[in-house]
Amino acid sequence: MIAAELQPVLKPVAFLLGTWRGEGSGEYPTIQPFRYREEVRFSHTGKAFLVYTQRTEALEDGRPLHSEAGYLRSLGDGRLELVIAQPIGFAEVELGSVSGNRIELQSTQVLRTPTAKPVSAIARKIWLEGERLHYELAMALGGTALTHHLSAALVRVS
Amino acid sequence: MIAAELQPVLKPVAFLLGTWRGEGSGEYPTIQPFRYREEVRFSHTGKAFLVYTQRTEALEDGRPLHSEAGYLRSLGDGRLELVIAQPIGFAEVELGSVSGNRIELQSTQVLRTPTAKPVSAIARKIWLEGERLHYELAMALGGTALTHHLSAALVRVS
Repeated sequence: MIAAELQPVLKPVAFLLGTWRGEGSGEYPTIQPFRYREEVRFSHTGKAFLVYTQRTEALEDGRPLHSEAGYLRSLGDGRLELVIAQPIGFAEVELGSVSGNRIELQSTQVLRTPTAKPVSAIARKIWLEGERLHYELAMALGGTALTHHLSAALVRVS
Repeated sequence: MIAAELQPVLKPVAFLLGTWRGEGSGEYPTIQPFRYREEVRFSHTGKAFLVYTQRTEALEDGRPLHSEAGYLRSLGDGRLELVIAQPIGFAEVELGSVSGNRIELQSTQVLRTPTAKPVSAIARKIWLEGERLHYELAMALGGTALTHHLSAALVRVS
């Protein structure tokens, strides 16, 4: 499924391409802090978007924790659109931009199934620093406004 | 990522598990009819949802056409929740049910990025008939109400 040619419109986000692994930590006012192992993959099919998949597992026993999947659309002038589905019952659209090796995105709206947790907003920062891909994710949940939730540092493994 | 144990709540949709391949056809009032080759995969991680991925390609030259990814949540009483991200710039939540080997789902809302086509609703039927997995998808786009768009028949390859 990997096409020979990356669309020129994807060049600003080409630094994301590959499979990345590392560890991260989570916190939120309503939960105990936790750490996790993560694999993130960005690939392309020859079309004007990157395919994004992610999964995390517990450090101690490898049990699956979170996963999500989506698509990063690049408009070519630095503007980005991200669509994501999350198995905890929500789907989101995030808008943002890339500047150098730094991406910032924020949800415009989050759709939830009737049984999903009341997440109402998500913001992401993703940046490459040397050979490490970092991200931070903030989340608004229930009565809590957009608050830092996750951060991780990953290295490219393929 | 495949856990040994399927959660009991997923038994009503366990007939979906596996990788399926086949051909389908698309039509819509605003486009020329077309045919496509497709691979659909439903897997699980030991949690209470199925992971869904799909991709289609052109019959004539194998160029990638559509893809989407999401998660099918089973509530255990026949009710289902589906969350999907589509690289054409939208994310959706669909609700529905499974009865026997037949699933029916309809979107409650579709989130779109600013550059996405104005898709406003999607309905899916998925059913197993003998060894063939069939689906039909209807879509509302622009001024066109929910109208038949896609149908395919797939066989399990693994």
